[in-house]
Amino acid sequence: MPYTPGLHIISEFTSEHNELLSYSLKFRDFLNDEISRQELTKVGEVWHDFPGGGFTAVVCLTESHISIHTWPEHKLATFDVFLSNYQQVNDGKARAIYDNLLSFYEGAEIQKNEIKR
Amino acid sequence: MPYTPGLHIISEFTSEHNELLSYSLKFRDFLNDEISRQELTKVGEVWHDFPGGGFTAVVCLTESHISIHTWPEHKLATFDVFLSNYQQVNDGKARAIYDNLLSFYEGAEIQKNEIKR
Repeated sequence: MPYTPGLHIISEFTSEHNELLSYSLKFRDFLNDEISRQELTKVGEVWHDFPGGGFTAVVCLTESHISIHTWPEHKLATFDVFLSNYQQVNDGKARAIYDNLLSFYEGAEIQKNEIKR
Repeated sequence: MPYTPGLHIISEFTSEHNELLSYSLKFRDFLNDEISRQELTKVGEVWHDFPGGGFTAVVCLTESHISIHTWPEHKLATFDVFLSNYQQVNDGKARAIYDNLLSFYEGAEIQKNEIKR
């Protein structure tokens, strides 16, 4: 079977929701719901809240990974969703997760790149 | 302090080293050496070897993250190194890790993107 490149969305956005950028708890609920809704499969995850606010999280999936790094002091976050297309085309799922993420944070996009890989 | 965008290198490469694409063990040694040499700080990691070969790994750092997904059946891997510049400029470290990765795999680059974020 030939390799079908997946979609990696690479974003940076601002949000006025300081509490959602400072602590991972609510984002964790959001992301778990998305993973479940999109029928993706976790293979491991890291959640790290920094002292003083801000967090880093990566969820590894059979379909690749989702990551976030937040900078509440700059009202800023960097977000990646990368879904490979091993058994089915997941590009629509990557875009749905990203759209829902921006809604969750009421985020204003600073930059977004899409890479097929 | 203003936000200083970090460097995210996003790569796809091929390698003839089937065993280095199939199993995470030697890559893990390589990456731990790099993290130590570049004086980066881990905050968590995921290592997942798929049945039949191929693996996914993400190491979260105080400076963001490094990830790899391998496809030995396609002699292919996707690799990311994203280092933020919170307390010092780490762009040189990201490039050094990426150069050393290509040497480790004797990899042939298919695509490389650099994003400042």
